[in-house]
Amino acid sequence: MIKAGIIGATGYVGAELLRLLLNHPLIEIGAISSVSFEGQEINKIYKNFLSKTDLICETMDDVIKKCDVIFTALPHGLSEGIAKKAIDSNKICIDMGADFRLTDEEEYKLWYGKDFSEPELHNQSVYGLPELNKEKIKEASLIANPGCYPTSIELGLMPLLKNSLIELKGIICDSKSGTTGAGRGLALNTHFPEENETFAPYNIGGHRHTPEIEEMLSTIAQDKVTVTFTPHLLPINRGILSTIYCNPKEEVNLEFLHKLYTDFYKNKPFVEILPIGETASIKNIRLSNNCHISLHLNHRKDQIIIISTIDNMIKGAAGQAIQNMNIILGFDETEGLNFIAPAF
Amino acid sequence: MIKAGIIGATGYVGAELLRLLLNHPLIEIGAISSVSFEGQEINKIYKNFLSKTDLICETMDDVIKKCDVIFTALPHGLSEGIAKKAIDSNKICIDMGADFRLTDEEEYKLWYGKDFSEPELHNQSVYGLPELNKEKIKEASLIANPGCYPTSIELGLMPLLKNSLIELKGIICDSKSGTTGAGRGLALNTHFPEENETFAPYNIGGHRHTPEIEEMLSTIAQDKVTVTFTPHLLPINRGILSTIYCNPKEEVNLEFLHKLYTDFYKNKPFVEILPIGETASIKNIRLSNNCHISLHLNHRKDQIIIISTIDNMIKGAAGQAIQNMNIILGFDETEGLNFIAPAF
Amino acid sequence: MIKAGIIGATGYVGAELLRLLLNHPLIEIGAISSVSFEGQEINKIYKNFLSKTDLICETMDDVIKKCDVIFTALPHGLSEGIAKKAIDSNKICIDMGADFRLTDEEEYKLWYGKDFSEPELHNQSVYGLPELNKEKIKEASLIANPGCYPTSIELGLMPLLKNSLIELKGIICDSKSGTTGAGRGLALNTHFPEENETFAPYNIGGHRHTPEIEEMLSTIAQDKVTVTFTPHLLPINRGILSTIYCNPKEEVNLEFLHKLYTDFYKNKPFVEILPIGETASIKNIRLSNNCHISLHLNHRKDQIIIISTIDNMIKGAAGQAIQNMNIILGFDETEGLNFIAPAF
Amino acid sequence: MIKAGIIGATGYVGAELLRLLLNHPLIEIGAISSVSFEGQEINKIYKNFLSKTDLICETMDDVIKKCDVIFTALPHGLSEGIAKKAIDSNKICIDMGADFRLTDEEEYKLWYGKDFSEPELHNQSVYGLPELNKEKIKEASLIANPGCYPTSIELGLMPLLKNSLIELKGIICDSKSGTTGAGRGLALNTHFPEENETFAPYNIGGHRHTPEIEEMLSTIAQDKVTVTFTPHLLPINRGILSTIYCNPKEEVNLEFLHKLYTDFYKNKPFVEILPIGETASIKNIRLSNNCHISLHLNHRKDQIIIISTIDNMIKGAAGQAIQNMNIILGFDETEGLNFIAPAF
Repeated sequence: MIKAGIIGATGYVGAELLRLLLNHPLIEIGAISSVSFEGQEINKIYKNFLSKTDLICETMDDVIKKCDVIFTALPHGLSEGIAKKAIDSNKICIDMGADFRLTDEEEYKLWYGKDFSEPELHNQSVYGLPELNKEKIKEASLIANPGCYPTSIELGLMPLLKNSLIELKGIICDSKSGTTGAGRGLALNTHFPEENETFAPYNIGGHRHTPEIEEMLSTIAQDKVTVTFTPHLLPINRGILSTIYCNPKEEVNLEFLHKLYTDFYKNKPFVEILPIGETASIKNIRLSNNCHISLHLNHRKDQIIIISTIDNMIKGAAGQAIQNMNIILGFDETEGLNFIAPAF
Repeated sequence: MIKAGIIGATGYVGAELLRLLLNHPLIEIGAISSVSFEGQEINKIYKNFLSKTDLICETMDDVIKKCDVIFTALPHGLSEGIAKKAIDSNKICIDMGADFRLTDEEEYKLWYGKDFSEPELHNQSVYGLPELNKEKIKEASLIANPGCYPTSIELGLMPLLKNSLIELKGIICDSKSGTTGAGRGLALNTHFPEENETFAPYNIGGHRHTPEIEEMLSTIAQDKVTVTFTPHLLPINRGILSTIYCNPKEEVNLEFLHKLYTDFYKNKPFVEILPIGETASIKNIRLSNNCHISLHLNHRKDQIIIISTIDNMIKGAAGQAIQNMNIILGFDETEGLNFIAPAF
Repeated sequence: MIKAGIIGATGYVGAELLRLLLNHPLIEIGAISSVSFEGQEINKIYKNFLSKTDLICETMDDVIKKCDVIFTALPHGLSEGIAKKAIDSNKICIDMGADFRLTDEEEYKLWYGKDFSEPELHNQSVYGLPELNKEKIKEASLIANPGCYPTSIELGLMPLLKNSLIELKGIICDSKSGTTGAGRGLALNTHFPEENETFAPYNIGGHRHTPEIEEMLSTIAQDKVTVTFTPHLLPINRGILSTIYCNPKEEVNLEFLHKLYTDFYKNKPFVEILPIGETASIKNIRLSNNCHISLHLNHRKDQIIIISTIDNMIKGAAGQAIQNMNIILGFDETEGLNFIAPAF
Repeated sequence: MIKAGIIGATGYVGAELLRLLLNHPLIEIGAISSVSFEGQEINKIYKNFLSKTDLICETMDDVIKKCDVIFTALPHGLSEGIAKKAIDSNKICIDMGADFRLTDEEEYKLWYGKDFSEPELHNQSVYGLPELNKEKIKEASLIANPGCYPTSIELGLMPLLKNSLIELKGIICDSKSGTTGAGRGLALNTHFPEENETFAPYNIGGHRHTPEIEEMLSTIAQDKVTVTFTPHLLPINRGILSTIYCNPKEEVNLEFLHKLYTDFYKNKPFVEILPIGETASIKNIRLSNNCHISLHLNHRKDQIIIISTIDNMIKGAAGQAIQNMNIILGFDETEGLNFIAPAF
């Protein structure tokens, strides 16, 4: 059986990936690693794993050695060297961090403050949004797994941009995310009494997902797209909902939009277009790999409003990584990912 | 001592107003009414009032007869007749519903499905946003207390519109509200297991605060303003945060904007402009009559983003109504409203 | 393939059971029914099912006719007649309501206000707590699926009672449940603004799970056991945590207790005894079929405190029902139930 | 005007006290201090204070010098020396920490791991539960402000213990608290994604409020009282609800209990006994200085269950401290504390 490994298994993304992979029928876990918890059982750190796994956190090198598919779940800047080792050992590497998401090194330097350390690898890496790049993913051995906010926004805009139906300037992406997106690290703004019963935006004009969004939307549109992206923190654990405002080049109606989206996504197993009149909501996709999209017009019918919602930890991270792995390994794209959102 | 009365005291807005008025040092409660709970003690219905008041719900006519200031907290369509009676009895009437908010009867008909029943009263009524209309409010005896979403949006945009600094078309108001805004009536979308741990917009393109926002922004700008308004429901009790996107006519910078807003609101006791670099958050105004506004630019510096946040039940309803009463009665505008938000 | 059906599929328990059964590898859904939503697609009522199933709500008779295993998820008093029909048609019936949980008809009459309508069926029914009754369940065709609170309490006390180690009088069960336990029906106490940010007990001295708890604990102890049971409502969706206080007949220590429990549950796949020094928490079992138990002494070491926690909708309802079905059908007890709690 | 000062103003208890004192009509703030934030404006740290106060954090000595009443809101072990200085300067000192709560130095050493550093001061200090010690508080200059859990439990049991109506052994106090009780310090168990949607006990058998509860209940009963105390953490910000189980010496009924409690607390402005049949709930006292108590029997009528609920930050800390100050200064006990809980 194919062996998968996780480097950085004790962060939220790593732990979520482990949870999903343990239920994947065609994969076994070869090894996991954690710098902070090396030598410790994962089920002591996350007690939901009690009796489900006895895996012990090993070193990165153990993971690379023992596994066929290496998932990296690390802060940005740490994955390039590991990916190099993995690729040099002929392993598949799926990076869940930001290191390979941008192709433009200048933009990377601008937003992340460092150069590419393994520039040649960036030519090999494929942006792992299966609804966009499935054919390329099939052939790839290095995947840049998309960011959570970008996934919700790119899926929400792809049919319009592919068909040149909207103005490319001034798209507004007002996104709201649950707190797991901020990770396991302690901070005052995610201290329970500070985050409970409140709501606020953060990093306005400065969130590092901005260049990823603009670069990928431009790739999709085959022309320069600019957005205003405003992330907000919701007092819930999981889920991203993006409210996207864009201006149609010509008058549109909902029936047209609905057909466009439905046709576009008809063979994409994880994207659902809601019926006209319904509104996407986090609760219907939370804890699943699904993306729900609903389509709306403002009251003057001169602006399109797209609601796109995903689970930030699954379709926005660990689930999408498994979807990429499935495609590379020739499995059914939905293998191990067919679980249904608990609506309550 | 001046006697205040509440018609509709057992809805959330009415009960919140009662809570605030009981602590107002210059007012006593003359009577309260409720159709559903007539004859019952309010402290049996809301047990937070135990030992704080023994008031019994009486009839509307009792309230009008016994009180000098009549607050109406009723579903739309029910206040006009009551306001007529109150005004005919030379009482002050502050309507917390929607009946007098729009001056354009055609718009009212379009969004509310009915005509004005007391059209002549609409000439007397004053839109009770003290930061805009304080002088008119002083002379008024009939106040249309603003809606909660419109309050947050109008306060957020007033300095820019008064100074003709932004494009009047295509302003986007992405607003998020706590669930008390939906009132005490039971509904599936506010059933705890359905609303907890989720987030979604509602009434896209169809929320009845839309014409109020457009009419008042146009009044402020003295020109036709159009907006796209999208309300969302937050899984918290209180607070509205509006993220407002607008396009400056000429390039602006944050220092300029900050000075503009600070000067504009310098004598307005309830509006605070946050220092540059800080972001408004519901937790700092929740359970107070304050509005916090923070100013931002997107990453290309070509769009202004305004964050404006209030407590929907206080500055967005009961507190603003008291502020209006204070102005009419010649009290200090802040009387009974100086309480500070509990930040946690 | 075996066909399962759900009568009452649109309540929370029914919908949760459907969600779990759709992922069960050895079962297909034959039919579902709902009186309120007959003729409607379940994915219109619960949008988490979009693209996951097109099942339409049929009639009860359709379910009985088309399926081999009939699950009833109905308010008490409605299952007896249906169970009769199912058993008479040689089907397996698993009742998730209260109708068959009590064997003492007098107690049933006292707490539920009605007689048994099919008294002879009560001789056939087996109380479906697999950790207690697995052998009987194997032979059964009619299962009384336990209540959620009783499951948490019975699993928490079984090793002590089976071994006659504690006083049988005065056991205190202080239980706390998420709001899904109250079902989909609207009520003021589960209206979001009323339930959020609060906490309170309910039905003190009068909750209908009390006689079930006492009857089953007495069965386990083979002697009369009495309890004080106090349920509380937590402002969360899922999970029950019971804090159980009991008095040891002789002095005990934690090592002894831990070994007792670990041995007792060693072949029970869903019950985990936490290491000494750790404390059971809802987050580690939520959305799984697991029960976590931790063992403690008070500061004088003269009282045992047991923390027992389950997901009220899964091990406390739908998951346990599937566990019972698996046992009856000769499947592995864990089939379709091996999913891991998402700890965040 | 009397000047009050807060030592430790930037912790949650200190900041809450400041919020309440700023609205106290007979007090002005002389100075506040914070070791961590010395020299900084409090409204930069807690933005709810924007435009409400410009106070700057000074040193402890500044506070003692400038103020008549010194409140200490510090981790245990730090207040004794400060209290000494304050008392030596003839100031009133109200310690909100644990340093003076226990009179038994051996118990203090056992639970807190240190000796009294100013043993003679302990003879002067008065336990500041006004419903028990009002006459002593009037004469005191050093107050040990009670713990939050102990306040809820002592108020709940006082009428029964004063009248020798219950067994003194084996009282069970199952208490649940909001997260503000854990303070502003970051910890994994109060990281939002870890604490949200869960519930668990903590420190079973080892919480430091245990000896305070036992010592004070014994003082009230004038005999040795033992309890089992189990604290739990609720996923809400504020509020403690204690479910207290005790055994009556002779049979009692609810009418008798209700009269006993109502009479006992009739001149105590902050304690309300709910009518028979109603149940105390955090929402009705949250953000107020009130304590709500409801009285119940179990289904066999052989055990008394008392529900006692307070806001942990107000009646359990800052509000009670002000109540003590009011009594010492000869103000009305309710001065500055009459605000009403917002029920939603």
